[in-house]
Amino acid sequence: MKVLLDLCVVPLGVGVSVSEYIAACQRVFKDAGLMHEMHMYGTNIEGEWDDVMAAVKKCHEVVHKMGAPRISTTIRLGTRTDREQTMEDKIKSVEQKLFRS
Amino acid sequence: MKVLLDLCVVPLGVGVSVSEYIAACQRVFKDAGLMHEMHMYGTNIEGEWDDVMAAVKKCHEVVHKMGAPRISTTIRLGTRTDREQTMEDKIKSVEQKLFRS
Amino acid sequence: MKVLLDLCVVPLGVGVSVSEYIAACQRVFKDAGLMHEMHMYGTNIEGEWDDVMAAVKKCHEVVHKMGAPRISTTIRLGTRTDREQTMEDKIKSVEQKLFRS
Amino acid sequence: MKVLLDLCVVPLGVGVSVSEYIAACQRVFKDAGLMHEMHMYGTNIEGEWDDVMAAVKKCHEVVHKMGAPRISTTIRLGTRTDREQTMEDKIKSVEQKLFRS
Repeated sequence: MKVLLDLCVVPLGVGVSVSEYIAACQRVFKDAGLMHEMHMYGTNIEGEWDDVMAAVKKCHEVVHKMGAPRISTTIRLGTRTDREQTMEDKIKSVEQKLFRS
Repeated sequence: MKVLLDLCVVPLGVGVSVSEYIAACQRVFKDAGLMHEMHMYGTNIEGEWDDVMAAVKKCHEVVHKMGAPRISTTIRLGTRTDREQTMEDKIKSVEQKLFRS
Repeated sequence: MKVLLDLCVVPLGVGVSVSEYIAACQRVFKDAGLMHEMHMYGTNIEGEWDDVMAAVKKCHEVVHKMGAPRISTTIRLGTRTDREQTMEDKIKSVEQKLFRS
Repeated sequence: MKVLLDLCVVPLGVGVSVSEYIAACQRVFKDAGLMHEMHMYGTNIEGEWDDVMAAVKKCHEVVHKMGAPRISTTIRLGTRTDREQTMEDKIKSVEQKLFRS
């Protein structure tokens, strides 16, 4: 089962600057060989369910190891059985509607 | 690693009534022996990371099997290394602050 | 437009214990006269769109005033035009499916 | 109060293809003159709290008008009082950490 996932990891108890933790998560996705793209409020990740979820768990492990005693994460995730859809397809589909109008 | 997770599964392509799919997910959590409690906009689940995540995956599999071609799920999840905290602790902690004020 | 909203306010830069901030938000909802119910990972709130959103804004103002320099909030919210649905209806609808099965 | 918001609008009861509704929301943000950028699983929007929230409400009104009887939306939103931060700053801050490592 393929999944498109949008992840936002928020470390607590480490002050207001969280970018080094976010950077560490980017390295987790890269090391896992997963397609991923960061945006302002999270990171889009694409892949097989088990691979993507293993990376999410790894992020928590890494961020705790870096010193964050508490993490509050939010995830949006989509699966579909009717057809395959990549990240790029999804954006293109909306853009086509915008240009047509 | 223990996790407190808040799950909201939204099946698409099956009309506006989604309660039978939510009910099916409740059965997944029950069958998995996981502490869980439904609220208006999701279900709180508590347990070991791998057990909870296996149940989330099972929900997607079940809901697709019931006929939903597409699912959009949102998750909030918290882990902490400083101390253990159960669902009940979390609610109590806020209530104490409310009663004291 | 009626809305059912699920709110989770996470203050950053104030350590790992956030329950006093959550308690302050509960008082905001109470003072606003909004139906609300706390769960493990958020609070369900029901009411007219503008009233509910004014309360969400008030929460941010109050939590900042209490000393949190940064807040990361997540919201799920539902609107529908086909019929009115209260918090209680939503839970009942799932429970009926569970008992029938 | 400035806000950075990440919005994902999911129309229910209109089948599995939702891109025309997402496109309509993009037009709402553009007409409102708000900085916004679509990603795979939502849209980042930046601006004054009231302006951004008015646009979110407008999205729901437009999507209902287009025929969706039910909408389930998720939002992440951040405010901070310590300093101003734009969308671009946020991404840059993580990228600097990545390049340094």
